[in-house]
Amino acid sequence: MPIPPSTPSMSPSRIGLWFIGARGGVAATATVGLVALQKKLAGTTGLVTDLPPFSRLNLADWADFVIGGHEIRAGTLLDAVDRLRSDSRVLDAALVDECRAELAAIDRNIRPGSLANSGATIAGLAGDSMRGVAAERPTETIGRLQRDLRAFREEAGLNRVIVVNVASTEPAHEYRELPHGWETLRGYLESDQANWLPASSLYAIAALDLGMPYINFTPSLGSNATAIDELAHLRGTCHAGRDGKTGETLLKSVLAPMFAARNLEVMSWVGHNIFGNLDGQVLDDPVNKAAKVKSKDALLGKILGYDPQTLVTIEYIRSLGDWKTAWDHIHFRGFLGTPMTLQFTWQGCDSLLAAPLVLDLVRLVELSARRGERGLLVHLGSFFKQPLGMEEHDFSRQLLRLRAWADEAAG
Amino acid sequence: MPIPPSTPSMSPSRIGLWFIGARGGVAATATVGLVALQKKLAGTTGLVTDLPPFSRLNLADWADFVIGGHEIRAGTLLDAVDRLRSDSRVLDAALVDECRAELAAIDRNIRPGSLANSGATIAGLAGDSMRGVAAERPTETIGRLQRDLRAFREEAGLNRVIVVNVASTEPAHEYRELPHGWETLRGYLESDQANWLPASSLYAIAALDLGMPYINFTPSLGSNATAIDELAHLRGTCHAGRDGKTGETLLKSVLAPMFAARNLEVMSWVGHNIFGNLDGQVLDDPVNKAAKVKSKDALLGKILGYDPQTLVTIEYIRSLGDWKTAWDHIHFRGFLGTPMTLQFTWQGCDSLLAAPLVLDLVRLVELSARRGERGLLVHLGSFFKQPLGMEEHDFSRQLLRLRAWADEAAG
Amino acid sequence: MPIPPSTPSMSPSRIGLWFIGARGGVAATATVGLVALQKKLAGTTGLVTDLPPFSRLNLADWADFVIGGHEIRAGTLLDAVDRLRSDSRVLDAALVDECRAELAAIDRNIRPGSLANSGATIAGLAGDSMRGVAAERPTETIGRLQRDLRAFREEAGLNRVIVVNVASTEPAHEYRELPHGWETLRGYLESDQANWLPASSLYAIAALDLGMPYINFTPSLGSNATAIDELAHLRGTCHAGRDGKTGETLLKSVLAPMFAARNLEVMSWVGHNIFGNLDGQVLDDPVNKAAKVKSKDALLGKILGYDPQTLVTIEYIRSLGDWKTAWDHIHFRGFLGTPMTLQFTWQGCDSLLAAPLVLDLVRLVELSARRGERGLLVHLGSFFKQPLGMEEHDFSRQLLRLRAWADEAAG
Amino acid sequence: MPIPPSTPSMSPSRIGLWFIGARGGVAATATVGLVALQKKLAGTTGLVTDLPPFSRLNLADWADFVIGGHEIRAGTLLDAVDRLRSDSRVLDAALVDECRAELAAIDRNIRPGSLANSGATIAGLAGDSMRGVAAERPTETIGRLQRDLRAFREEAGLNRVIVVNVASTEPAHEYRELPHGWETLRGYLESDQANWLPASSLYAIAALDLGMPYINFTPSLGSNATAIDELAHLRGTCHAGRDGKTGETLLKSVLAPMFAARNLEVMSWVGHNIFGNLDGQVLDDPVNKAAKVKSKDALLGKILGYDPQTLVTIEYIRSLGDWKTAWDHIHFRGFLGTPMTLQFTWQGCDSLLAAPLVLDLVRLVELSARRGERGLLVHLGSFFKQPLGMEEHDFSRQLLRLRAWADEAAG
Repeated sequence: MPIPPSTPSMSPSRIGLWFIGARGGVAATATVGLVALQKKLAGTTGLVTDLPPFSRLNLADWADFVIGGHEIRAGTLLDAVDRLRSDSRVLDAALVDECRAELAAIDRNIRPGSLANSGATIAGLAGDSMRGVAAERPTETIGRLQRDLRAFREEAGLNRVIVVNVASTEPAHEYRELPHGWETLRGYLESDQANWLPASSLYAIAALDLGMPYINFTPSLGSNATAIDELAHLRGTCHAGRDGKTGETLLKSVLAPMFAARNLEVMSWVGHNIFGNLDGQVLDDPVNKAAKVKSKDALLGKILGYDPQTLVTIEYIRSLGDWKTAWDHIHFRGFLGTPMTLQFTWQGCDSLLAAPLVLDLVRLVELSARRGERGLLVHLGSFFKQPLGMEEHDFSRQLLRLRAWADEAAG
Repeated sequence: MPIPPSTPSMSPSRIGLWFIGARGGVAATATVGLVALQKKLAGTTGLVTDLPPFSRLNLADWADFVIGGHEIRAGTLLDAVDRLRSDSRVLDAALVDECRAELAAIDRNIRPGSLANSGATIAGLAGDSMRGVAAERPTETIGRLQRDLRAFREEAGLNRVIVVNVASTEPAHEYRELPHGWETLRGYLESDQANWLPASSLYAIAALDLGMPYINFTPSLGSNATAIDELAHLRGTCHAGRDGKTGETLLKSVLAPMFAARNLEVMSWVGHNIFGNLDGQVLDDPVNKAAKVKSKDALLGKILGYDPQTLVTIEYIRSLGDWKTAWDHIHFRGFLGTPMTLQFTWQGCDSLLAAPLVLDLVRLVELSARRGERGLLVHLGSFFKQPLGMEEHDFSRQLLRLRAWADEAAG
Repeated sequence: MPIPPSTPSMSPSRIGLWFIGARGGVAATATVGLVALQKKLAGTTGLVTDLPPFSRLNLADWADFVIGGHEIRAGTLLDAVDRLRSDSRVLDAALVDECRAELAAIDRNIRPGSLANSGATIAGLAGDSMRGVAAERPTETIGRLQRDLRAFREEAGLNRVIVVNVASTEPAHEYRELPHGWETLRGYLESDQANWLPASSLYAIAALDLGMPYINFTPSLGSNATAIDELAHLRGTCHAGRDGKTGETLLKSVLAPMFAARNLEVMSWVGHNIFGNLDGQVLDDPVNKAAKVKSKDALLGKILGYDPQTLVTIEYIRSLGDWKTAWDHIHFRGFLGTPMTLQFTWQGCDSLLAAPLVLDLVRLVELSARRGERGLLVHLGSFFKQPLGMEEHDFSRQLLRLRAWADEAAG
Repeated sequence: MPIPPSTPSMSPSRIGLWFIGARGGVAATATVGLVALQKKLAGTTGLVTDLPPFSRLNLADWADFVIGGHEIRAGTLLDAVDRLRSDSRVLDAALVDECRAELAAIDRNIRPGSLANSGATIAGLAGDSMRGVAAERPTETIGRLQRDLRAFREEAGLNRVIVVNVASTEPAHEYRELPHGWETLRGYLESDQANWLPASSLYAIAALDLGMPYINFTPSLGSNATAIDELAHLRGTCHAGRDGKTGETLLKSVLAPMFAARNLEVMSWVGHNIFGNLDGQVLDDPVNKAAKVKSKDALLGKILGYDPQTLVTIEYIRSLGDWKTAWDHIHFRGFLGTPMTLQFTWQGCDSLLAAPLVLDLVRLVELSARRGERGLLVHLGSFFKQPLGMEEHDFSRQLLRLRAWADEAAG
């Protein structure tokens, strides 16, 4: 139950941070990072909420957070962290060593997740613990997930739990038949008419129905349905999404406005992405990839006001590990029509770019929840490739919206 | 004399556009472009003032403009255009052919300029016509330039003349001794105490003293002096500058804010620029280059709020002609400190990127002049590497300023 | 009939150069180039046979060549040349203008080609003239093509005709059933058991059966069959192929040996190719593309001695026209295992890179034919992505082979 | 004294490897690598001598080598290794930990070097131990260095000592006055007429005079003087050099031959190098940099047969540590003159690329010494930017020379 809006400045003593995909690269990195922040082993570089525009907000302290999560894979959180460190050289060995005890403790808060309609590639990653839950009906899954969330809240003595989806991308579905109202959707779920609903949405329903905010950091469906948004309103809670904007798409959202502002015509924009982490392996399956490509490709036409020829590829190249390398080739022309070219190569470590955004979102959503904000948090659009509830894709304009919210929240 | 602010919507019938460096690459391209616009041979891609935010402004028609200028080099305008076309393949042969008669006519409006303190490299480019004016004192030069400007205005029956400096970059000077008031500066000029003043400033004084707006599209000193700004106010006219932002620096002004907004620490930013046009040849002289490098390098610290290690080189590579190629390597780190990299390669045709901005500026400044605006036009900062009168270097924020002005001017 | 090997030094007075795909980008560029060479309007940069190692060979003069060809598309040769010039800015307008009369004359030597098993995309390009030949059986096609070749030889009074396939890439086929001997294959053709044979092979058979050398500059099957090679031997003529090595693959064939020689382990090699000419449009069809990708990807394992993960994409990006842009990302590691990266971007004009190689091959093959060489000309491997009859893919080693042949041929 | 040529197959039991610059990045990495090879903790990737062409040679085992060296800086070898690991993330922490005892033992074999004519920047790096030797005359320095080398040989019971210069680049000098014969040079040294001789040459003289082979892996003068080569012959020993070819220049030596072989005209070749290790800091001094740039720039004209416009920069960018990033822009044209571009970005870890080459050279030189080869070992040219005694710069042709030697040496 949300803290009433009349006491927004009260600092929460304990907040749960519940990861869907808790042993994936993003969650593992965010977890190491949060532990490192709590132990004063890491600085705040990369954290948006540490910047001046947010200094007057009464944001939760890093020390307030307690981590748990759902996961479909076997292995331990420490395995995941060690693999990131050794395969991709992205985490400092000494730092990881200092966090081992905390990581082991957090691992005990991780419960079996859901594979519902996640596709064969994700199912192929499932650990033994997923066998027991394979035959569930949607309402059974939701019930089980809610028991896990409630147990986490109660056992850890938490004032609030924020649920964040950082699991692998589900296949793109067709959703023509989804009803618009929550009561109808609930009926569908009970009568097995919504058996096609993907895990990401079951998690969203489970969380929001308990009044827990839900953040969708992936391109999966999640809470992106009118009926689920209504549920959030009914339960007095909030949600945000969709698909964290960390690298190539972030660049698109700053470069495309430049071309538009200078009236330079983008004739074609080609983006080739290669990387080798587990997320990449899942995206190597065409049905999963389709959802991601769509998410990366949508913004150009919206920013430019016309549709240049675009091409987005995402390919799994094992040796790259967590290093997402993107080459973009932008072919444009200006006055008198001579073609010109901008190319960029982005070599970013995906998990390290995503993790601080996840922590920022959790902090910002927690404050919104504390303030009593309900439904979609559209001011968070700058964090997402597909900003739910916001038509704006220009990064600088999305930031204006976020800062306007921050000014208002600061009072 | 400016048209009174009470009649801003009256459309000017004839406007002079006076180029300093009238046979250089930028002026030649802008001239071909303007003629092509007047003859409906070219579209408006690349022209900022053709975009929706400016559609409600009563901007001058392209048909209203008449071109003239100062130049220190020999040769004809057609030579310059043909060289651009053949060396750099940047202009369409058929288009140039259709504009030959107009270009020849414009060439007859070009007068000998000034070499005052422009350095040995620029002096080495001077044509025979410059011999006669070599020994002038500053006041003589100003007087001569003003006679040219007045004659142009009168012979062509112009309502207003806008002066635009697109000449080669002068050497960077030390300006410690420049007085703050116009009357004192005028005294210095008359008593030969300001003999070190560069040509760009003599042009600025000549124009502003006649009530003609002055735009400095170069890194040269030009009107960037308190005394000269005072002159503009005294004569009821306006000016803007400094150094058109066309390529690599434009990208810096959109990418650096992205790093700042995401709290990613830029550790180093290296930019190597190579090109082979005449401007490049002048910049190959270290004293001229110093002025340009300073102009390209200043903004990063201002946007980021700290000073990463930076390196900017500009090198003359003959074979590239007008094709400015810039490679930038940005080394940054985010959460937990792992270094990452963004590289870009910009392959732009310098003159074709600059020319439409020059035409935009002329149109916007003409409206400001018609509206009775005086002194520095700070809302034009988005066009410049060193936006005079504006601390803001973030391109998106500079645009907000321009659009606010446009909204106000549209009424 | 071949000139007897006893008179190899006799210079041929007139040589036919017959293009399959005579109005495509490569043939059109080679044709303009040859005419320009004949009229002394072009230099010999880009022509391998103009280099010192070949100066002692009694190669044919450019003046000796007469051009004709087969084509399936409508339009004129001049159309094709003009499109190259205007879409891709790759040919000088003045040069083209000086060659118009000759191009028009050559156009009259172009006859309808064959669409046999060329796939739906190529068939979609066919002009009206192809309607009349649509229902041919393979032997009818061969007969018709041979009548065209003979008529060309006789009407132009040629001593020899060299046939060069520069048509679009055919779909990759399965060729399990092809017999090994020519007599058996001829029987198959007559009994319609080889109806799946693609046009490229029908052209090869038609030419070789007339004793005319055949060069396959494409990845299509062409003469790459034991039975067709036997035919060349039987008729005392020669052939070479397959798929001209002009850009990205050329770079692979010089860079991969470097990694091998330094014992650096290539972990992955990703190559993304984008371009927008007609060839690209054909390759946009997956069945045609498969043949090309295979051709571009085969060499790495052969040079390195192991198979790194590779990825080759070829995508049609309209705005690029004839400008093939390739981005390659090579991920490697050396001593002590730290991963490192080499990236390159190749921006080449495909037709202009291919055309001189075609002219070189014609000249070299003509000399081989004059010297009485029979069957596959394996010393030409450096020109091809898939060097028929040669296991060597290292460019520098392929060149040693070519130079050894040149030394021997120079006597 | 060299083992007589009659017993070349006898395996040496103990070989000394003496590094000049023993605590620099290259030596530190080569030392860690050699220890790792001896302890079977590292594979042989990156080692040229592990490739098949060299398998029949009776090369020394890695176990046979004992390390010592000269150094002018303070600090320990372990400090240097730890800095490489933490600043540049190039060495595995676990690997380093397993080698600590051996590294500490090797550190005890390191003696104060010489700063003779090494320039102010190198002198600025000198540790306290260099104070005692500051005032030496050249002959005193040579005598001291020889005492160190003899003591190392005797105390460690070595059959042979190979001296390798991997110290920082000395300033480029003028060497007009150097006599051609060793006896004359010795006279100069004794009479203080050769006081300008740099440390690299004093090391070379000290080593060769004791019959110890000398390898110059730097652009410094070292043994590149006729008189010093004569000394090697007189003492029956051998030497090789100059400046290890590890990255950008290696690429030039494979790419330039490709342009030459295809008769493509290189119009300009621009190479910008950035890196941040200690070597980079020394090269930030213009006098030191000049020697390096010359070394990187010489080969293009020699390979191409003409001199395109070239530009080579080397800049110290602190954040890059040992990661040498090079951007090369190659502007070329082929048939019919259209300009095209190849760009590459090389991101290599300098020390990790250099270290295995150093180990390879030591092994190959040791075999040459054992075989009784005297004077310059010209077959080693493929390892060097400035291959002493070899005009050939084409990497593939340099390799042919090396392999011919290997074939001969294998018998």
